[in-house]
Amino acid sequence: MMTREDCLALDACDPLAELREAFSLPEEVIYLDGNSLGARPKAAVERARQVLAEEWGEGLIGSWNSAGWRGLPERLGNQLARLIGAGEDEVVVTDTTSINLFKVLVAALRVQADRDPSRKVIVTEASNFPTDIYMVEGLADMLQQGYSLRLVDRPEDLPAAIGSDTAVVMITQVNYKTGYLHDMAALTALAHECGALTIWDLCHSVGAVPVDLKGAGADYAIGCTYKYLNGGPGSPAFVWVAPALRELVWQPLSGWWGHARQFGMEPRYEPAPGIGRYLCGTQPITSLALVECGLDTFAKTDMQALREKSLALTDLFIARVKARCGAHPLTLVTPLEHARRGSHVSFEHPEGYAVIQALIERGVIGDYREPRIMRFGFTPLYTRLTDVWDAAEILGDILDSGAWREERFMTRKQVT
Amino acid sequence: MMTREDCLALDACDPLAELREAFSLPEEVIYLDGNSLGARPKAAVERARQVLAEEWGEGLIGSWNSAGWRGLPERLGNQLARLIGAGEDEVVVTDTTSINLFKVLVAALRVQADRDPSRKVIVTEASNFPTDIYMVEGLADMLQQGYSLRLVDRPEDLPAAIGSDTAVVMITQVNYKTGYLHDMAALTALAHECGALTIWDLCHSVGAVPVDLKGAGADYAIGCTYKYLNGGPGSPAFVWVAPALRELVWQPLSGWWGHARQFGMEPRYEPAPGIGRYLCGTQPITSLALVECGLDTFAKTDMQALREKSLALTDLFIARVKARCGAHPLTLVTPLEHARRGSHVSFEHPEGYAVIQALIERGVIGDYREPRIMRFGFTPLYTRLTDVWDAAEILGDILDSGAWREERFMTRKQVT
Repeated sequence: MMTREDCLALDACDPLAELREAFSLPEEVIYLDGNSLGARPKAAVERARQVLAEEWGEGLIGSWNSAGWRGLPERLGNQLARLIGAGEDEVVVTDTTSINLFKVLVAALRVQADRDPSRKVIVTEASNFPTDIYMVEGLADMLQQGYSLRLVDRPEDLPAAIGSDTAVVMITQVNYKTGYLHDMAALTALAHECGALTIWDLCHSVGAVPVDLKGAGADYAIGCTYKYLNGGPGSPAFVWVAPALRELVWQPLSGWWGHARQFGMEPRYEPAPGIGRYLCGTQPITSLALVECGLDTFAKTDMQALREKSLALTDLFIARVKARCGAHPLTLVTPLEHARRGSHVSFEHPEGYAVIQALIERGVIGDYREPRIMRFGFTPLYTRLTDVWDAAEILGDILDSGAWREERFMTRKQVT
Repeated sequence: MMTREDCLALDACDPLAELREAFSLPEEVIYLDGNSLGARPKAAVERARQVLAEEWGEGLIGSWNSAGWRGLPERLGNQLARLIGAGEDEVVVTDTTSINLFKVLVAALRVQADRDPSRKVIVTEASNFPTDIYMVEGLADMLQQGYSLRLVDRPEDLPAAIGSDTAVVMITQVNYKTGYLHDMAALTALAHECGALTIWDLCHSVGAVPVDLKGAGADYAIGCTYKYLNGGPGSPAFVWVAPALRELVWQPLSGWWGHARQFGMEPRYEPAPGIGRYLCGTQPITSLALVECGLDTFAKTDMQALREKSLALTDLFIARVKARCGAHPLTLVTPLEHARRGSHVSFEHPEGYAVIQALIERGVIGDYREPRIMRFGFTPLYTRLTDVWDAAEILGDILDSGAWREERFMTRKQVT
């Protein structure tokens, strides 16, 4: 069994240790919520000053060209593509995950409507992140063409749920609650065998686990940049479409940024060739520009090295919670099998909400998800084995002492 | 006829003169493009530092609650509502103009489908900003339910184009090319008489002319915050829906931010009561927070005072260009009538593109719009009569000398 001294020694010789230097993290905080909002790259403050004081303040309208604002979605998309197994000019950073999901959902359903209009079912997990489900509901409600959701309770039930009626299989690669990591290649192959298309939501996998969209033969992917990619609060999302599908249909949010000639000011829409047609309206440049600071923090490593560290971190947390908190009613809901585990670890506790509040007060920042789930994210870029050790110790203290029973921890506030 | 000395004297006693102090504008630049990208409020740099260094860097995930990030769309919406004649809790700042247009278009068409499904026409101006037209095309193409656009060439032809087949009249209150200011109350009344609903795009009117949505009985409105509202490049847009229409239907982009209980993580969508249902996904907080700095610059004045100054500025520019540049082939396309004029002035010139490039090199920043239109925006918050005088003089110099004929001005670059 590892000791805290072992953790210190391993941290000291960790080849990724210096990456933590790129981030600003408060003293006395163990931040295990980078899977919800990534930490701030130190470079972000100066980059924002540059965008605002120089590019906006001095360059004014000219900065759309001279500072490259207009090209940011494509430029950042190319930088991000390397992390998800996508090619050059195949990704744009734009809009929100929900909006991008809407674009690819409509596109996928239109492709299927041309191939086999009887396919009307969208298969996903009942425990998928709610917004993914809600966006399908909104779309089906609008179209009134008989589309419906099939919600699957357990990952192992997915294969049986995909059949000849299935238009789209829409899966979040790493489940936001459980941390379950789906087998993208196997599920995509299965979907294709059944004639279905796949949409992969990469929110909880991009920057956390190696993703290989083209290797898996995936069809569509979307995701956010504000979790493991450290782009900043609510920073714009991304969208990828397999090149063979990209030009088959319009996506419906056909704004001027997606036009073949944006400044032609023509009275008819003509979608741009390539992934540019997945752009819509004018983008929030300050937030968008800061995505680059987040992506830059990946420049000195690769996803394989990050994956190894991520597994070492989650392995240690699972082992330490078992050793230190075994007397308490904690249930691990994250898979033990490496191949099925993302980069966060979730435990159920009957009073998970209160325990998380007590942890936060002690400086260990995890988060809570309904119902009963305590969630801990391990960002390999800036989390140390010692942090993991200490977090498990503090969790043990709080459970042993019953500190979480205090009224201020039990009272529900809005959570994020 | 006014002299430059008169301009100096009037500027000196202008009660709005001190408002310019809130903005950072480069020396030696006469900025007449605030109708495309507003100038930078000085406060924006410090606000960004605060959001990034303190709220993100120190507060981390907790800032969604403690720094009020989650409530920004509603809070900014209330601040903006006062400028457009909307009520408390009726506006949210979110997403892009194009996306918000899609939401209200679908909502309006659904309301009409329940009332009279035979109404399938969306009436707008052929010279409306292209993205508005493109979004209707994308929607009609997706729905395949027989919706079509009716494009009207001249404002005076609008009444004849609205009839018993009309579902929606979608008008940009101030035309982006011509500066024509539509009569919102009269057109809305006419649309309602014909059984049509109205969507008002306020991009070129909000913060520039008094807008009274509720007084006019309007149905839906959208607009941007990065022009006269000075929110920053690509800052998020806004949406307003008449309370009587708001809860009749879902808008289709039904993401988690629009759910009645966002953090309930429920597997079924239930739209929030009120304008909150027009939210969709997680917003770009840095860009969103800076909208407040722009809105704050309106605190020391009111739209009536700004309107008076705006008309003085555009009157002077029209008069000075006539006096100083009368020998050249310039055609005023902006109405002379005050009641029909927004806050920008456009002239056609056969080589408008080159003339604008030459002006920019001389420090007078206007912009060019296809075909042949030279556009000059007059933001009453920070533009002086002397600026207007000097801009017309420099335009005269360039036209007299033929400086715009140089090759570097004639060569087309991407324009914004």
